[in-house]
Amino acid sequence: MKAEIISIGTELLLGEITDLNAAYLASQLPLLGLDLHFISTVGDNKIRLIETLDHAWKRSDIIITTGGLGPTEDDVTREAIAEFCHETISIDQSLVDQFKNLFRQFNMEMPESNIKQAAVIPSCQIIPNPRGTAPGWWVEKQGHVIISMPGPPSEMQLMWNNVIAPRIKEKYCSSVIISCTIKTFGLSEAKLGELTRSYLLHDNPSVGIYAKPDGIHLRVTAKAETEERAKSMVDKTVKELRQIAGEYIWGIDNDTLEGLISNIFISKNLSLATLEINTGGILANMITATAESTKFYKCGIVINHNRLRPDFGMNENVMMQYGDISQQTAKEAATAVKRRFNSSVGVGLIGVMENEAPDYKPGTIIIGIDDGNHNYSFQRIFPGNRTQIKQRAAVSALFELRKIML
Amino acid sequence: MKAEIISIGTELLLGEITDLNAAYLASQLPLLGLDLHFISTVGDNKIRLIETLDHAWKRSDIIITTGGLGPTEDDVTREAIAEFCHETISIDQSLVDQFKNLFRQFNMEMPESNIKQAAVIPSCQIIPNPRGTAPGWWVEKQGHVIISMPGPPSEMQLMWNNVIAPRIKEKYCSSVIISCTIKTFGLSEAKLGELTRSYLLHDNPSVGIYAKPDGIHLRVTAKAETEERAKSMVDKTVKELRQIAGEYIWGIDNDTLEGLISNIFISKNLSLATLEINTGGILANMITATAESTKFYKCGIVINHNRLRPDFGMNENVMMQYGDISQQTAKEAATAVKRRFNSSVGVGLIGVMENEAPDYKPGTIIIGIDDGNHNYSFQRIFPGNRTQIKQRAAVSALFELRKIML
Repeated sequence: MKAEIISIGTELLLGEITDLNAAYLASQLPLLGLDLHFISTVGDNKIRLIETLDHAWKRSDIIITTGGLGPTEDDVTREAIAEFCHETISIDQSLVDQFKNLFRQFNMEMPESNIKQAAVIPSCQIIPNPRGTAPGWWVEKQGHVIISMPGPPSEMQLMWNNVIAPRIKEKYCSSVIISCTIKTFGLSEAKLGELTRSYLLHDNPSVGIYAKPDGIHLRVTAKAETEERAKSMVDKTVKELRQIAGEYIWGIDNDTLEGLISNIFISKNLSLATLEINTGGILANMITATAESTKFYKCGIVINHNRLRPDFGMNENVMMQYGDISQQTAKEAATAVKRRFNSSVGVGLIGVMENEAPDYKPGTIIIGIDDGNHNYSFQRIFPGNRTQIKQRAAVSALFELRKIML
Repeated sequence: MKAEIISIGTELLLGEITDLNAAYLASQLPLLGLDLHFISTVGDNKIRLIETLDHAWKRSDIIITTGGLGPTEDDVTREAIAEFCHETISIDQSLVDQFKNLFRQFNMEMPESNIKQAAVIPSCQIIPNPRGTAPGWWVEKQGHVIISMPGPPSEMQLMWNNVIAPRIKEKYCSSVIISCTIKTFGLSEAKLGELTRSYLLHDNPSVGIYAKPDGIHLRVTAKAETEERAKSMVDKTVKELRQIAGEYIWGIDNDTLEGLISNIFISKNLSLATLEINTGGILANMITATAESTKFYKCGIVINHNRLRPDFGMNENVMMQYGDISQQTAKEAATAVKRRFNSSVGVGLIGVMENEAPDYKPGTIIIGIDDGNHNYSFQRIFPGNRTQIKQRAAVSALFELRKIML
């Protein structure tokens, strides 16, 4: 079945708020097996909202609107739906009484304007709103459904989860959808796209490719009549993709690099210290994104290469011989910080942001890792601005660290 | 003139990413005097994209699309526009050469699939993309304009600001719109909204209020026939708002806290070192967002409060007497790091993320600043999750540091 989302509110068209409702609903619809082909955003304007409902009606079975159910003059969602359905609005006295009771609980009198929110039309069923005075509407007509929910995300999500999603599932869901996201790092989107080209053209299971700050993700989605069947379709494709992307894969679904690192260090009872040269603490910041980091992350040093010399017990000869920016210096930084803070593992990370070193292009990243047995180094180069280079430096370091620690 | 935004990408319809581009563009269009009545989101599907272009064409003068310009099979924006315009795609060899050069700089061979991104049609002008291999398109036809920009927000915003917005302004803007953004920190959005309520109801100049990671912004916009008149309207309102928000204002327009700090330290020939306790390097990361940070930022230490004791020359008696988490310890951290790295100024920052200290609620932030003459401390509390608390801790520290250094 086809679903369509309409987000209503002039504040969305002025860029005053970001539309979180559409993204939330969009993430929920696949779980119900609904196909979402369009999201529209329209202001609090009755004529344009009717036009949008009309387009949606012609191409979708289920239309889900959020917003425009408030008590003020500019909230016109109810009026627009009524007019679109050629139905007449009346006031539901039992809803008015409920509102009055609600206000009484807070020792307030109900403002006259709230009466507007008790409006109903013959084809609508009222959906209760436990968090506010904007009830939802479920309008069934000629094989289509229009579902209207309030704009505040907490009210909308509660209504969605309590009533709307279960009702849609019961009435319309025949198939099951399952998906799995494979997270990779080290291949460009274009390269991974080339390698997985035949999969990207498939329909079911379908494979999507997404560039993210932590690498390139592949999402495999399958639709089937039973959960078992959908799962086996996903599993088969994931297995094949694993053979293609192999060593570049670092996680699946909700895995994060910092979460995986945290699990490895805690389970092995190891500790970590880092020394960042020119990357300004992005690695420390990423490692400490998890609360568990307090259990294994000992200390981070953040310094610029031109301030490096006298500190932290680094062997000056190494820097003299190979330069502040070099694989040898990254290794020395890893060893020095490991020794200085008595940690099991040390990571040295060097970023070349501009023209700090004539032999290294901007975007070069050098990683040193001392795990107590061996001292590794890696070098990569990335395009991008300062913020992007920093971000990719941290991701690179965690990606290599994870591989070594396994 | 009427504008319309089309956000393109199946990942938007799957709820995998939130559409930040539409919100950004929506906030920019009023500055060009363009009315935005509709935003549509559509997947990477040629037929549905053509349908969406068709609706937009019938009701709007300027159609702005983002996304779907990548090198992979599923990127179909160029093909859809070509088909919608009944034009034939050809490959621009000079663009292919540019791409090849770009890849060569990173010692890589251009994947074949990137050739797709050099596609052009007769009515399109190419808009350069300094940050990637997805050039934009500016297609003029029958009094309408279709503008296509890449989906990654940093690429899109650069293209918008460098080329698209100035060109729209030059070609289509009869009245002059001027705006000024006032950046505040320390007041809630609701409180600042209350204080500026009468301004928020105004039409011209209009005032909008926006919650951002670096505080609450007020945007004043005026429309007039001459630049002089628009400017004087903006100036008058900004002056009045300055009296209302006073000490909470830290900057205007493109100011960033890290940029202001950088200017102050460099102009006064001072240096800075930081010691972060529980905030995981977010302050170092923010300070080093500017390339100029290399000129004044000496070093950052990132540590957890439970690892604090033996290091960095902090007076253990202070920690013993007042606790690891206390205003006195923040001051001591500032002094210790200043001394250790021989910097002009030291900042100590402590974040309470969970239940590290029974007397301090999660979200508490303690800042110590030693400027060589005096040792200051500040304490605040913020709602939010770990990431938000870290972010606000860094903003708080830079906000206070700026005030002291002035």
